[in-house]
Amino acid sequence: MTYFDHVAPIRYAGADADDSLAFRHYDPSRLVLGKRMDEHLRLAVCYWHSFVWPGADMFGSGTFQRPWQQAGDPMRQARVKADAAFDFFARLGAPFYTFHDTDVAPEGDSLAEYANNFAAMVDVLEAKQAQTGMKLLWGTANLFSHPRYAAGAASSPQPEVFAYAASQVFHAMAATQRLGGANYVLWGGREGYDTLLNTDLHRERAQLGRFFQMVVEHKHRIGFKGALLIEPKPQEPTKHQYDYDSATVYGFLKEFGLENEVKVNLEANHATLAGHSFHHEVATAISLGIFGSIDANRGDPQNGWDTDQFPNSVEELTLVMYEILRHGGFTTGGFNFDTKVRRQSSDAADLFYGHIGAMDALALALDRAAGMIERDLLAEFKAERYAGWDGGFGKQILDGGFNLQTLTEEAARRDLRPAHVSGRQEWLENLVNRFIYG
Amino acid sequence: MTYFDHVAPIRYAGADADDSLAFRHYDPSRLVLGKRMDEHLRLAVCYWHSFVWPGADMFGSGTFQRPWQQAGDPMRQARVKADAAFDFFARLGAPFYTFHDTDVAPEGDSLAEYANNFAAMVDVLEAKQAQTGMKLLWGTANLFSHPRYAAGAASSPQPEVFAYAASQVFHAMAATQRLGGANYVLWGGREGYDTLLNTDLHRERAQLGRFFQMVVEHKHRIGFKGALLIEPKPQEPTKHQYDYDSATVYGFLKEFGLENEVKVNLEANHATLAGHSFHHEVATAISLGIFGSIDANRGDPQNGWDTDQFPNSVEELTLVMYEILRHGGFTTGGFNFDTKVRRQSSDAADLFYGHIGAMDALALALDRAAGMIERDLLAEFKAERYAGWDGGFGKQILDGGFNLQTLTEEAARRDLRPAHVSGRQEWLENLVNRFIYG
Amino acid sequence: MTYFDHVAPIRYAGADADDSLAFRHYDPSRLVLGKRMDEHLRLAVCYWHSFVWPGADMFGSGTFQRPWQQAGDPMRQARVKADAAFDFFARLGAPFYTFHDTDVAPEGDSLAEYANNFAAMVDVLEAKQAQTGMKLLWGTANLFSHPRYAAGAASSPQPEVFAYAASQVFHAMAATQRLGGANYVLWGGREGYDTLLNTDLHRERAQLGRFFQMVVEHKHRIGFKGALLIEPKPQEPTKHQYDYDSATVYGFLKEFGLENEVKVNLEANHATLAGHSFHHEVATAISLGIFGSIDANRGDPQNGWDTDQFPNSVEELTLVMYEILRHGGFTTGGFNFDTKVRRQSSDAADLFYGHIGAMDALALALDRAAGMIERDLLAEFKAERYAGWDGGFGKQILDGGFNLQTLTEEAARRDLRPAHVSGRQEWLENLVNRFIYG
Amino acid sequence: MTYFDHVAPIRYAGADADDSLAFRHYDPSRLVLGKRMDEHLRLAVCYWHSFVWPGADMFGSGTFQRPWQQAGDPMRQARVKADAAFDFFARLGAPFYTFHDTDVAPEGDSLAEYANNFAAMVDVLEAKQAQTGMKLLWGTANLFSHPRYAAGAASSPQPEVFAYAASQVFHAMAATQRLGGANYVLWGGREGYDTLLNTDLHRERAQLGRFFQMVVEHKHRIGFKGALLIEPKPQEPTKHQYDYDSATVYGFLKEFGLENEVKVNLEANHATLAGHSFHHEVATAISLGIFGSIDANRGDPQNGWDTDQFPNSVEELTLVMYEILRHGGFTTGGFNFDTKVRRQSSDAADLFYGHIGAMDALALALDRAAGMIERDLLAEFKAERYAGWDGGFGKQILDGGFNLQTLTEEAARRDLRPAHVSGRQEWLENLVNRFIYG
Repeated sequence: MTYFDHVAPIRYAGADADDSLAFRHYDPSRLVLGKRMDEHLRLAVCYWHSFVWPGADMFGSGTFQRPWQQAGDPMRQARVKADAAFDFFARLGAPFYTFHDTDVAPEGDSLAEYANNFAAMVDVLEAKQAQTGMKLLWGTANLFSHPRYAAGAASSPQPEVFAYAASQVFHAMAATQRLGGANYVLWGGREGYDTLLNTDLHRERAQLGRFFQMVVEHKHRIGFKGALLIEPKPQEPTKHQYDYDSATVYGFLKEFGLENEVKVNLEANHATLAGHSFHHEVATAISLGIFGSIDANRGDPQNGWDTDQFPNSVEELTLVMYEILRHGGFTTGGFNFDTKVRRQSSDAADLFYGHIGAMDALALALDRAAGMIERDLLAEFKAERYAGWDGGFGKQILDGGFNLQTLTEEAARRDLRPAHVSGRQEWLENLVNRFIYG
Repeated sequence: MTYFDHVAPIRYAGADADDSLAFRHYDPSRLVLGKRMDEHLRLAVCYWHSFVWPGADMFGSGTFQRPWQQAGDPMRQARVKADAAFDFFARLGAPFYTFHDTDVAPEGDSLAEYANNFAAMVDVLEAKQAQTGMKLLWGTANLFSHPRYAAGAASSPQPEVFAYAASQVFHAMAATQRLGGANYVLWGGREGYDTLLNTDLHRERAQLGRFFQMVVEHKHRIGFKGALLIEPKPQEPTKHQYDYDSATVYGFLKEFGLENEVKVNLEANHATLAGHSFHHEVATAISLGIFGSIDANRGDPQNGWDTDQFPNSVEELTLVMYEILRHGGFTTGGFNFDTKVRRQSSDAADLFYGHIGAMDALALALDRAAGMIERDLLAEFKAERYAGWDGGFGKQILDGGFNLQTLTEEAARRDLRPAHVSGRQEWLENLVNRFIYG
Repeated sequence: MTYFDHVAPIRYAGADADDSLAFRHYDPSRLVLGKRMDEHLRLAVCYWHSFVWPGADMFGSGTFQRPWQQAGDPMRQARVKADAAFDFFARLGAPFYTFHDTDVAPEGDSLAEYANNFAAMVDVLEAKQAQTGMKLLWGTANLFSHPRYAAGAASSPQPEVFAYAASQVFHAMAATQRLGGANYVLWGGREGYDTLLNTDLHRERAQLGRFFQMVVEHKHRIGFKGALLIEPKPQEPTKHQYDYDSATVYGFLKEFGLENEVKVNLEANHATLAGHSFHHEVATAISLGIFGSIDANRGDPQNGWDTDQFPNSVEELTLVMYEILRHGGFTTGGFNFDTKVRRQSSDAADLFYGHIGAMDALALALDRAAGMIERDLLAEFKAERYAGWDGGFGKQILDGGFNLQTLTEEAARRDLRPAHVSGRQEWLENLVNRFIYG
Repeated sequence: MTYFDHVAPIRYAGADADDSLAFRHYDPSRLVLGKRMDEHLRLAVCYWHSFVWPGADMFGSGTFQRPWQQAGDPMRQARVKADAAFDFFARLGAPFYTFHDTDVAPEGDSLAEYANNFAAMVDVLEAKQAQTGMKLLWGTANLFSHPRYAAGAASSPQPEVFAYAASQVFHAMAATQRLGGANYVLWGGREGYDTLLNTDLHRERAQLGRFFQMVVEHKHRIGFKGALLIEPKPQEPTKHQYDYDSATVYGFLKEFGLENEVKVNLEANHATLAGHSFHHEVATAISLGIFGSIDANRGDPQNGWDTDQFPNSVEELTLVMYEILRHGGFTTGGFNFDTKVRRQSSDAADLFYGHIGAMDALALALDRAAGMIERDLLAEFKAERYAGWDGGFGKQILDGGFNLQTLTEEAARRDLRPAHVSGRQEWLENLVNRFIYG
């Protein structure tokens, strides 16, 4: 009898089914634009929120009481947790999972213990992957929870902390490679500052740059085939995090010559905390050539912290999916559920409800976005709107046919009086709703 | 009898004076750290808010009733406005001013009219500068108010709009050069999007890149000695503006190879709209090597739009001034009052009160920051905090002495167990208050 | 040939139709829960954004160039505007409209001119209503645009301004009554403060209280049968507006004994500016017994000012509609489109696109919410969740059966150890999506 | 040897002293406006942040390693904690402290254990108060941390949870009374909702109303002489908290007839999370007659969660202090430091730095505000600004001398044309800075 035993494997039952523990829209083998739905979405369940977090918040203790969260021998509990996690994965049916090193193995009290514990648990994970067919979307190292990282990891004022962090990344990359991970992610939760009064921005940036250069070099050295991804977030736990958003990460990568080596793992809730729409972050990363993967969740539009709720807005997801499909879909990336059930959702079944709803929402969004792509009226509209730049005067400008003076002379010669042309925003919004609602 | 005739020239009267129309702290010739206060601050009055804006907002019409804002022949009114502006400048005593092309001259109905009107008014400004000794901190072109720019200027879907914008910049750069301007500023008020549904981010970025390359090339061609400055703003009037913040502008400059050619003109209110502190934006631009100049104002911490209020927080300004002084002070830049009196502040005297208070606040901040610099305890604290990176292990890491694997081995060999060290934030905050309040 | 002549009357064409100028979901005579769709929704077009606003914003001039916005004799232009407005109303097919006094008639230079102009235009409106069958959802007075109201209307420091405002309300109530208006609305755009430094909160609240008491008394005196409605907004144009949100308005009404006389007109964009969801404001007003009517629009989640966009989120509107249906639907209220096309949407057709999309979105939301009501699983869930309060111990507590001490004794006697029960948020969210997406 | 033994008692050393562990401005016995500084400020240290919180956040574990936070017998550790707390209080020299029931005593596993543990620790606290002279500013009950309160306390769907909460309040009020507490506070951390989908606003409000009525009745029954205070907060941990802000609490109190029985305990960081300035909340509560006490702290203007930093802005605090002084000062209330050192500030000394800086900031603010009161130019300005309401026409209006119609007739008869008068915001802001900076 396992913790999730009372929940039968989740199946696609169709939109008319009445079962709360079935998919209504997520039908993995259904072809959309000629590709299976599961290959489009590449869905992953995360270890940390779903199996490590006890349902605590800053104002209250855990409500979940999972068996593996009780006191006990850490390695034994890590194995019980892995049993529960893979049991859940298998029942849910998402093909991928994701983890931090310290989610799956106890940190121990030294680097040696850390490495031993982690190695032992990677054996366990490898065996479980083989048993269940689960795949690893990405691995990562937790460089923010332990007190040693209170002032940052790579950006710490102490080189020893940098070295400790480098060690964790070394082991986490090895584990990710061994487990066939499709990507390796770096989220710099404490790579930022609490106050500028004690912070040397220039030094910390140089340290971060060096750290990433080492990680890139190491990837090539070990022949890791997956992508390296930075996950932008603007703040929390720090006042300001250096990987604020896609555009900021782009500048960092350019400075250190890494723009062809590292992409971004975008999170919806991080986008909105940065003052951007999720759609914006995805479209921006694509336009900058650094789009990699997605942490699918949502924030609360009225709350100013990371709520990591399950995504449920088909309206929002359709636009994101449209951008990804137009980009050609994921390569190594996928949709990872960096999501947690609410603290009040304390039943085992709630973990399923959260994931099922999110998977159905993504399936709906994929379906609607595919409709938008099939006859891509948005693209047609844009092509027409910018047509002036494709040839003639526009192309001549872009190709360097004028300098500021000759262009000024040309404008005067033609006596240009360009009139504003409607941007048709409402018409376009109606068009999108038509794809979503018929 | 002029509009401002009832206000005598503003003089430094000392902190004990009781006159609302005197400076209590701004004493231009006072030496601070061996340099005159006016040379430190390089204060400028802006034309647009103080002489063009009628006191209207989106919910109400103008309250100011300035004589030059009444109906009448546009060129005549432009001259009356220039008389008033320079009369105000002379009475106030800030050494610089700033303007958009369309602030000082009527746009007219064609490029030819525009050029003629502008040229005529530049003659007027040149004569007035000679009479009064006023200097131009920077000029700029208004590429956002006319309906032709509703969808952007350089990033417009219409090449003709790009060409029109280029023409304005050509003339505005010429005017700035002729008037001895120390900088030329570009604020892309409509270079952004209202909706992604009608926007091609990649195209618009390429257009913007080309535009800036042309401007940089032109600067060198004409031998303009001032600095080129981009003014970041995250949004408003657009939903999203491409020059979101310093870090975003840095990435843009890097992409187009302009990071050594263009710097930033930072505005306090734009920083806070972008979710950053003013202090953050200044420190970030300095750390990225792109700090140029300041639009000194403040936003309302509870309101989500550009309020452009006069800066009055000595606490905030002291930290900003400290960063600038540590950076070596302004070169071409200065503090420009991109500020407007409140719509209710409809008297001529209110224009003086606003500027006087801001100038005194900056003078106080300069005084306090100079104290911080004289014995720079913050710098000492930081030097000690990061000392581990200056030699030995830290330096070896930064200099490439390790790769990820050898560093991991070294960490294991040493059995590193770095303990967290207090960041002393409260102690540092107390220290700053001690400089501000004694 | 009229301005809108090229647009044929908008008809319901069904979801499969391909016409951008047709309704796909808004089918006025369709019965939903036994009531016609148009009677459920009571849709209204506003005069101000659609016919008065020229497409200007704080950074640019008008892009629309409507014929009635050209220079000319004000009364003549007011008639041309009314012709255009009613032509639009008739072609669109929403049954109601709304206006401010100064939208429909020129203010003039005195109270006498104001009254004369307004009376003449009310004659025009009355005739047009008779011709077209249009009805007035509500009228209101503009007490915020003229410079006299810069410091507030009822809350002005000048009693003469209060009196002027009272005069406008007197005339606007008379006009509303004569035109058969279903409600009279008061939005206190400048009833707030720009700075506490010049504001006496206690005085201004007393003035506002007196003003509302006079309005209520007058309503009864003249026998106006419609509802009086306050429209909450947290800020903009003021820093802080006294009618911040529903809960704040409730406290004000209670203080002045008006809670049974005045209800609220809730706007989506005002809700989100106040830090609430639109759903929250509607549910809160209903729970407090002061729900009246809706200004249907949406804000931009990333922008901090009133964007007044057309509502297009069926997801959001469905929840709002569910609350309204559970409440029994509108009585005097309705959905008023306090919406404006984007400044770039400068074509006459854009006005139609905006309204058509919004009407379809509301029709879809009504349809989905009706499904939720037909078998009200949310209500069933809540009834079960709170069942402990319906009898026994819970009822005894609520009915005063215990004081703090006896309840403490009872809890000790029973040795109460209540365990947390799952709140099932994700299950409920999935349920809602099922109603929206099938 | 105690934990704080290496820190000598903090003394007033004057502004010129160079000691980081001394007061530079807080001089308890100094007379300000004829009253001792300590009697003006009534400073309190809180138990929870300073002695219970281990330096953990949502992304990392505790950094503090206080001896009393180590594993061990709960009652023994509670006594060690009390020793440390009172040792700190005595060394710091703030006269008051504050606590939650569960800060000072272990919760135990039943109501009986809870009551026993708490009673035993109240004995300890009583003895320590007698030894040290410390006084209790207020007590409160923690009705939000235990999982039973995940869905609220008084507003829980389970009556048993309401009863449990009532028991805690009963005991906490008794303890507060016995310890001579000047106030009793209720903060409804979970009295709100995570989602409207599972929430019955009307029921929860009725439950809350009943709860407060019981508390008020009990206060009178036991003869507790202190004030009852509600602490408003808009959100966090819930999505929306019912005691959103002062204006919302006022409406709640009015509905349940409690406006003369309960006041508010205002927190700076809660004010800003609600979209208000701290100044606003204080001025609003005073104007509504419900001002009680202050939780002195500050939030981060760029972060959207409760950071509870030490207050250090003399500029902000001066305006707050001015309002309090004009109101006549505190009666039962005071300034409670609901503040925590940053997670990086892990040294024992950091606890002192935080409090010392905050006490000096409040002392400076008191000094500056006293200057503003001595010649109250703000009050003079306001009196003049609103003078029209003190007699004649204004008074007649307020006193009911007109109805809407007669006032309209009077306005027409007089042909009123009120002109806008400057609100002089900048002049007033300069005036305030003059009091702060001389």
